[in-house]
Amino acid sequence: MLYSSEAVERAIHELSKLPGIGRKSAQRHVFYLLKRPPEEVQALTRALVDLTLKVKHCSICFNITEQDPCPICRDDNRDKRLICVVEEANDVMAVEKTGEYRGLYHVLGGALSPLDGIGPEDLTIKPLLARLTEDVEEVIIATNPNTEGEATAFYLAKLIKPLQIKISRIARGIPVGADIEYADEITLTRALEGRITL
Amino acid sequence: MLYSSEAVERAIHELSKLPGIGRKSAQRHVFYLLKRPPEEVQALTRALVDLTLKVKHCSICFNITEQDPCPICRDDNRDKRLICVVEEANDVMAVEKTGEYRGLYHVLGGALSPLDGIGPEDLTIKPLLARLTEDVEEVIIATNPNTEGEATAFYLAKLIKPLQIKISRIARGIPVGADIEYADEITLTRALEGRITL
Repeated sequence: MLYSSEAVERAIHELSKLPGIGRKSAQRHVFYLLKRPPEEVQALTRALVDLTLKVKHCSICFNITEQDPCPICRDDNRDKRLICVVEEANDVMAVEKTGEYRGLYHVLGGALSPLDGIGPEDLTIKPLLARLTEDVEEVIIATNPNTEGEATAFYLAKLIKPLQIKISRIARGIPVGADIEYADEITLTRALEGRITL
Repeated sequence: MLYSSEAVERAIHELSKLPGIGRKSAQRHVFYLLKRPPEEVQALTRALVDLTLKVKHCSICFNITEQDPCPICRDDNRDKRLICVVEEANDVMAVEKTGEYRGLYHVLGGALSPLDGIGPEDLTIKPLLARLTEDVEEVIIATNPNTEGEATAFYLAKLIKPLQIKISRIARGIPVGADIEYADEITLTRALEGRITL
């Protein structure tokens, strides 16, 4: 044991399991917490306990929520003809932040990745297909523009096509504010393919 | 509220208080935790609760410990003639990791910093002076080699000198493995001043 306290050692160990947090950062966090008033650490632990107790997945769209169905699925002002399919719950938040989308969502819980052993049955694809009744007019596939996300989009498109529902994919291109000079070839190719008449 | 769950929002808020963790990383951690089995989140929260309940400061050296006095102060094999003065408890761990030091420690709890309103009374300087009985032969000042650490070292040296105890300061110089070409002038000056006869 490197530290003279088992409690410190264990807190470092547990914190370093978080993504992108190594032993050094975990150590920094623990020593920071040790210098804070106990109420502040309690506020953090209570928030984390509540996370496991209160947060569940919406039984319709699989977004994270405290009530089932989630506020978005229950909202009568949302356009129920549109379903935006995303990989993770945080993608829902990213799209919501734009304030531009008024349809519903469907959270897959990941992307197809045979190398990681993630197949169609590991994602919420069956419940998605069950949602595609005649009320739905368009499915927007907003999986990530990487190998897994593209494969998932392709797979979903093949499944949905026979249902006579419009399928679209979010545009890939140069990010706003970026430099064409530094864009990679694939992104630039996609940007050219997806060009819009002005 | 950006997120559809108050619990998620609060967990993000609490986690983003940790040093070097912004909203984006906190968000990533929360979504990671939401995907983990509840036992794993419980292990983390239990570790953090234990941190506030079990860890205290040693009444002799002010290092963090679960028992008072701390294992280092109680260890009869440690050389009680040597006291290494450091700023924080993590500095004790850094020195311990070398495996080269067998004396005792004294944790100041920071460094003098008039700009941040940290004066001598905010550090454990009085208890340090009280420890400097005739058994102590040398005080090694291992505060950080920055403005605050140097000022603290200078201040301590002035206080300890009348007590007829040897005072030393850890060497400042080029770090092992570094390039002289890229060393800053002050470090290089210190390295020259502290040169050792071979």
